[in-house]
Amino acid sequence: MAIDPRFYHTEGALDPARLAGHLSCDLSAVPDLPIRSIGSFDAASPGDLCFFDGKSKSWPGKLTEGAVCLVRQDEDWSASESDALLKLSDPRGAFFALTDNWITEEHHSNTPPAIHPEASVAESAVVSNGAAIGEGTRVEPFAYIGPGVQIGKGSRIGSHASIRFSLIGDGVRILAGARLGEDGFGLMPGDGRMIDIPHFGRVILQDGVTLGANCSVDRGLLADTIIGEHTKIDNQCHIGHNTIVGRHAVIVAYGGISGSVKIGDYAQLGGRVGVADHVTIGDGSKVAAGSGLMKDVPAGETWGGYPARPVKDWHRELIWTKKHSARKKASS
Amino acid sequence: MAIDPRFYHTEGALDPARLAGHLSCDLSAVPDLPIRSIGSFDAASPGDLCFFDGKSKSWPGKLTEGAVCLVRQDEDWSASESDALLKLSDPRGAFFALTDNWITEEHHSNTPPAIHPEASVAESAVVSNGAAIGEGTRVEPFAYIGPGVQIGKGSRIGSHASIRFSLIGDGVRILAGARLGEDGFGLMPGDGRMIDIPHFGRVILQDGVTLGANCSVDRGLLADTIIGEHTKIDNQCHIGHNTIVGRHAVIVAYGGISGSVKIGDYAQLGGRVGVADHVTIGDGSKVAAGSGLMKDVPAGETWGGYPARPVKDWHRELIWTKKHSARKKASS
Amino acid sequence: MAIDPRFYHTEGALDPARLAGHLSCDLSAVPDLPIRSIGSFDAASPGDLCFFDGKSKSWPGKLTEGAVCLVRQDEDWSASESDALLKLSDPRGAFFALTDNWITEEHHSNTPPAIHPEASVAESAVVSNGAAIGEGTRVEPFAYIGPGVQIGKGSRIGSHASIRFSLIGDGVRILAGARLGEDGFGLMPGDGRMIDIPHFGRVILQDGVTLGANCSVDRGLLADTIIGEHTKIDNQCHIGHNTIVGRHAVIVAYGGISGSVKIGDYAQLGGRVGVADHVTIGDGSKVAAGSGLMKDVPAGETWGGYPARPVKDWHRELIWTKKHSARKKASS
Repeated sequence: MAIDPRFYHTEGALDPARLAGHLSCDLSAVPDLPIRSIGSFDAASPGDLCFFDGKSKSWPGKLTEGAVCLVRQDEDWSASESDALLKLSDPRGAFFALTDNWITEEHHSNTPPAIHPEASVAESAVVSNGAAIGEGTRVEPFAYIGPGVQIGKGSRIGSHASIRFSLIGDGVRILAGARLGEDGFGLMPGDGRMIDIPHFGRVILQDGVTLGANCSVDRGLLADTIIGEHTKIDNQCHIGHNTIVGRHAVIVAYGGISGSVKIGDYAQLGGRVGVADHVTIGDGSKVAAGSGLMKDVPAGETWGGYPARPVKDWHRELIWTKKHSARKKASS
Repeated sequence: MAIDPRFYHTEGALDPARLAGHLSCDLSAVPDLPIRSIGSFDAASPGDLCFFDGKSKSWPGKLTEGAVCLVRQDEDWSASESDALLKLSDPRGAFFALTDNWITEEHHSNTPPAIHPEASVAESAVVSNGAAIGEGTRVEPFAYIGPGVQIGKGSRIGSHASIRFSLIGDGVRILAGARLGEDGFGLMPGDGRMIDIPHFGRVILQDGVTLGANCSVDRGLLADTIIGEHTKIDNQCHIGHNTIVGRHAVIVAYGGISGSVKIGDYAQLGGRVGVADHVTIGDGSKVAAGSGLMKDVPAGETWGGYPARPVKDWHRELIWTKKHSARKKASS
Repeated sequence: MAIDPRFYHTEGALDPARLAGHLSCDLSAVPDLPIRSIGSFDAASPGDLCFFDGKSKSWPGKLTEGAVCLVRQDEDWSASESDALLKLSDPRGAFFALTDNWITEEHHSNTPPAIHPEASVAESAVVSNGAAIGEGTRVEPFAYIGPGVQIGKGSRIGSHASIRFSLIGDGVRILAGARLGEDGFGLMPGDGRMIDIPHFGRVILQDGVTLGANCSVDRGLLADTIIGEHTKIDNQCHIGHNTIVGRHAVIVAYGGISGSVKIGDYAQLGGRVGVADHVTIGDGSKVAAGSGLMKDVPAGETWGGYPARPVKDWHRELIWTKKHSARKKASS
């Protein structure tokens, strides 16, 4: 990914060699391109700045040509010297310190919003510059559509919803008070305290998605948070940054999906299911209401419990405990 | 129920015989009345269209006279032929497809809102046509009062609250960011995907109810969602469609009540209690914080745990497991 | 504490003797001062009215000189007769009935808000009289800053956030839809029903705090709700009245902290942790995601489970139950 110019802009291109000088660090190879944008290591485009915070032995392979990568200076990078590596003590910290200054959220687009004549936008709603509202879409009172946000046809944006850094498809229903595109919850140490990591991704809601009242869907860090076609999400749910929910999934009220989770097509999560960071839920899997999911769920399986396990195991344990604790009582 | 004309209106009356022709299906008996409204099967009024999605052997009895009911065509209805039955393959789907087109949310009332001179409405609030605000009621900044909403005396509507399709009593306190009357979470298959079922009910908050910040109370499908007198609901709670909460009940933060639940008078739910669809909680019952309730709780009992059971059983199991797992460890 | 005149004002000073006459009760000793404000018993200032609802044998000691205290009339107060005690049947009920009439939320300050010229306030935001917005602070669309609220420098107030009765430091980030300063959830009996206890405290967010989207932080009853420096709170969290969260703490999404809880510095609460009223969590403690905490956690410990216990105990019980329930099945 390179950052989406509808939402972010840089303070001009950076010369890789000059950046190395500015950071007082080595640049192992000079790319042909200036740095124009940023990306995550595994999805860097030519001209992107990225970072790799691991040890050199876990370096996953060749860097995208034309990209520049911040890496740890105390590692042996001789095998990758032909990549454009900038070596310093804290690549992650340096990356976000740099980007936080270099990249700004685009709050000052001069392009007036493009509202289709057949759209219906409440007088009290705010639609920002650079935004687009499609045919037949209804925007209710006090909705806030941020700069550059694109909304398709036949969608409904409920009252008091806020939508920033987002691309919204056709036939999407966002109920009142939902929050799309706020910063994700990412922290890193700095100055003896935790600081919030700046977020440069987007939220994408594909066609036919329903998002319930007072939900929150955070935008990605260096990627997108995506909800697939016709997925239905009940009230009070939370979807963390970089999470990808498949198509035709169902998430019942208070579903709390952490960051970088993958949820498959047709998956069904009962009410109040919590899912830990980086967990994968397979296609067609089901998770029982109230579960706390810390592990991956293979496709098609049904899990439940806290912590969640295959539902048969959970039920067996419940029945066994009930039976034996009662027996014990009788015999004592 | 017939739909409330303050919130919904139809595109004119339907002739039952003509509707049968339009749907290319049989009408077993022609009622005297045109179809003017809709209702659920068990609460249909004369002139209502309703549906019954079960098999003929579970048909619960006589249809309200003057009502028309969509039923499954592949069943034997000979015993009920004197009722006005419209037979087709998918009565539920046909009912909602029809109503979605035939009934519209009343967004265009021309009656200006009736705001009592002793009410206090913030300049930035929106009070829609057909709405009424009673004496001494305070409406705070950015509150949205939808078309036809009725609010009694001495109530407080917090900032950023949204209230649609609702009747609100006297002395009610709705804190900031609460969402009343959004669509409930109801899905049905259609076109190879799940589609949202349209909702035609209301939300009713009786006198003295308190509803906390960022709560959501969905309106009913073909009935009302009701919160009884002096019931107190903490922040971040969710009440699903068609649920009926009694009087003097207490629901602590994050209480998540699914659809069609019945909660008795004086019931007390601790924080973060989840209640599954169609569960009944008796008068004066208590449910411990954090419980996940899948079964009915008889009146006056105290339940707890996940899944919830009588609290004595839950505690016995906890103590037994603690004791035996520790003993086991010592002996191995 | 005396109430903060930026948020509340009284209908003038009360003469202690005259108040005793009005309440038809005894005043054991007349203080030199009129009653000018209110406080909790343990933090009363001279000139404050407070109440003590316990028995005389649990009276914790001398009343602040110049304060007046409502106590139970059916107790023996002879040992404390030199304190200014007002004796009546229901000191708590009398206190709040009196204060509810005597003290009003200051909605009518005539001082226009003080917005620093380098602050950026969206046109659609409402900043009330008596409020102050510091240099470099950004206030987004539809934010509501209530009367008297003070916000420091370099902070961000997200869209649709509401902030009342609050003091906000520098570098604070409040994401969209967060609710600060709403009434806490406090109930007392009155007229055969539960009534909401009026709240006279504040919310204080110290420098560097982040508060996520759609969170709620209730103001204190007769004290403040405080979030310490650089504490980071994820989306959808709730902090109850009078709760004090230390510095550098982390609370992940759906953290539900009840009233009068104390959370230490550097404590970390995983997602969806619920904490019961009056619980103390020590410095540097960790609580696993999904836990329901009913007891105090000593400093530096890690707890988990529902109900929460030391995490080693929880894990041992889980493993033991899994193993034995499986064995049982095989042998039966």
